[in-house]
Amino acid sequence: MDIFAKFANRLGPIGDYAEKAPNYFAFPKLEGEIGNRMKFNGKEKIVWSLNNYLGLANHPEVRKADADAAAKFGLASPMGARMMSGNSDYHLQLEKELAVFVGKEDAMLFNFGYQGMVSAIDTLCGRHDVVVYDAESHACIIDGLRMIPSHRYVYKHNDIADCEKQLARATEMVKKTGGGIMVITEGVFGMSGNQGAIKDIIALRDQYEFRLFVDDAHGFGTMGSRGAGIGDEQNCIDGIDVYFSTFAKSMASIGGFLAADKKILTFMRYNMRSQIYAKSLPMAFVVGNLKRLELLRDRPELREKLWHNVRRLQQGFRDRGFDLGTTNTPVTPVFMKGGLYDAVQLTCDMRENHDIFCSVVVYPVIPKGQIELRIIPTAAHTDQDIDETLAAFDAVRSKLENKLYPQEMPNVGVFA
Amino acid sequence: MDIFAKFANRLGPIGDYAEKAPNYFAFPKLEGEIGNRMKFNGKEKIVWSLNNYLGLANHPEVRKADADAAAKFGLASPMGARMMSGNSDYHLQLEKELAVFVGKEDAMLFNFGYQGMVSAIDTLCGRHDVVVYDAESHACIIDGLRMIPSHRYVYKHNDIADCEKQLARATEMVKKTGGGIMVITEGVFGMSGNQGAIKDIIALRDQYEFRLFVDDAHGFGTMGSRGAGIGDEQNCIDGIDVYFSTFAKSMASIGGFLAADKKILTFMRYNMRSQIYAKSLPMAFVVGNLKRLELLRDRPELREKLWHNVRRLQQGFRDRGFDLGTTNTPVTPVFMKGGLYDAVQLTCDMRENHDIFCSVVVYPVIPKGQIELRIIPTAAHTDQDIDETLAAFDAVRSKLENKLYPQEMPNVGVFA
Repeated sequence: MDIFAKFANRLGPIGDYAEKAPNYFAFPKLEGEIGNRMKFNGKEKIVWSLNNYLGLANHPEVRKADADAAAKFGLASPMGARMMSGNSDYHLQLEKELAVFVGKEDAMLFNFGYQGMVSAIDTLCGRHDVVVYDAESHACIIDGLRMIPSHRYVYKHNDIADCEKQLARATEMVKKTGGGIMVITEGVFGMSGNQGAIKDIIALRDQYEFRLFVDDAHGFGTMGSRGAGIGDEQNCIDGIDVYFSTFAKSMASIGGFLAADKKILTFMRYNMRSQIYAKSLPMAFVVGNLKRLELLRDRPELREKLWHNVRRLQQGFRDRGFDLGTTNTPVTPVFMKGGLYDAVQLTCDMRENHDIFCSVVVYPVIPKGQIELRIIPTAAHTDQDIDETLAAFDAVRSKLENKLYPQEMPNVGVFA
Repeated sequence: MDIFAKFANRLGPIGDYAEKAPNYFAFPKLEGEIGNRMKFNGKEKIVWSLNNYLGLANHPEVRKADADAAAKFGLASPMGARMMSGNSDYHLQLEKELAVFVGKEDAMLFNFGYQGMVSAIDTLCGRHDVVVYDAESHACIIDGLRMIPSHRYVYKHNDIADCEKQLARATEMVKKTGGGIMVITEGVFGMSGNQGAIKDIIALRDQYEFRLFVDDAHGFGTMGSRGAGIGDEQNCIDGIDVYFSTFAKSMASIGGFLAADKKILTFMRYNMRSQIYAKSLPMAFVVGNLKRLELLRDRPELREKLWHNVRRLQQGFRDRGFDLGTTNTPVTPVFMKGGLYDAVQLTCDMRENHDIFCSVVVYPVIPKGQIELRIIPTAAHTDQDIDETLAAFDAVRSKLENKLYPQEMPNVGVFA
């Protein structure tokens, strides 16, 4: 059989219906400067889909640092993998500052966050080891687990009793294999907005021997008194053995880093395949990230503005009786009930009639009959953005409850 | 057992000795503008370790495009995955131009080459499929294969008889599984400099049903009458079903792309995990890559300069009796005989006394008793660079043959 035959007539769960509205629900183009309001199909919208938590993407000091770095170094430098020909004093400086900021002995830069996480799991977890991980872990964690031969036990999302149960199983297993146990969780879960039960997991150390690896993509820069992430927030930095964050969210950049004991990272520097066999993080990003880290660390007013917006938005939703699930972070999911047609008509209504751009999540990502609109408030948003958005949600919910949305695909494709 | 205990006292095959000469053999810092001569430890060296084949990294038009793009868009834009909020007209334009250039119906950008290749294999090859692949395939291909549940058969590097034997086995296997067969090879092998036997593999289609996936990282921009890669060189573009290249080599950038039939790429756009769940290729790189592609395509003199240098260098080595293996591409491995101490002393002699910086490869990457110095000529090198280098190789070979290198680690660490 032709290996391509299997997908000749289907595009998968998202593609199968998204192709009916090209470049609208999937692959929309947001144009103009990154911020609270951008253009979609030529018209200004309030945008709630970008993980630009601290508003750094378009901060004038960041823009200047980015432009200066690209002018000075170009975008090619350094050429080659970190180990071979891609090292620099700037890379070393950023690692040093990151380690100090998150309270670890050492830090290691990654050329890209997603593959960094995949490859870090691959490097740390071997054939005899056992991984215990949260069921709602991000795709990069799952891809890492798919690559390695370690046994693995999944626990129900943030369910500490189940986590303990799986740790007990893992402990029995490593008695046979002679390996060790790694617990992997997110610091802040990007879909639900739940904080990971990091402190509770650490408390299980009294009974079980394991190491803890936390992917804090959404927590770094947003959580804790210093913005140093979930360990800062839950006051348990020392209990996290390996701390990871991408630069793609509050840092408004690309790349990522791992922070841990020096001994661990020295091993990783010499053995992590995606870093040994691929190009180093470009210099312009390293220098741009130094500026971003400075602002994230030294301008608490950015984080205060983010949290002002988070509180106003989430309180506004709750006052109006909206279901935000169990979020206790800036990630703001709004859950409603309805089918696929309701979801797309509502999203479309929001965009076309209320000038609000947000992302919608439906089955199979969440259970059938549920609609999740995921709102990411940032420091770049204003009170007016929030108030207009709350009013719009009132309006669309009313339509939804009165079953006013046509049960068909809206005619909204953008053929470009 | 502590999961970290297994690497408490070892750094792996490279790290175990590299730590004895910190920041010298591993993690050296090359400073100054990217080109034929750069600074290492404060002194100018002729550099042969960068895959900057066409000299685009520091080309004035590229540097201007990079600086302008970063000034206009910053380095944060677009925020988010391509599918959700990371699409733009520039991304679409680059895809279109790449497809036309490499002679395929469609092209799809990747946010990073390494994870793009890993994830493309994951997307295309399922549980019932069988992969037949070259034994010297790059780490990103191997990592992709480690992630998928497909059966796989490896054939001896570029050995078409063995490739056919594995295809016969694969054909028997898919009769049972009901899946299809994918052959994966590199277009140009980065270590040996061998061209993949692409045309010969395609000829096997007369007897076997399979698709062909080529990673042309080192061939794109360097091979063929138009620089369009290995398909252009061997006049067999149509026989390659899925064509991949990173932007990290002749494009002197980051990211990568896949070129294939539109139907295949439409499926991939909706199902490729590393692209759906991670940030889009940054706009500044997309715009910078448009300029690079323009030069790569429209300035054949850059490729002619590269090949002038390749011929002068390789002919020079051969005239002097050096063993270059079987390379028939710009990648120029120089094989000598000696142990680990010979290799490091010789590399050190080359750097310190002849001001030549090149990378050395030893056991376990190649067999014990062999030393490989890998030279990457580029359009940025001069005849003088080449002649000085050939003379230096004469000198170090003479020392090596007369057993003049001390059998110990050189004292060359750079503690920084």
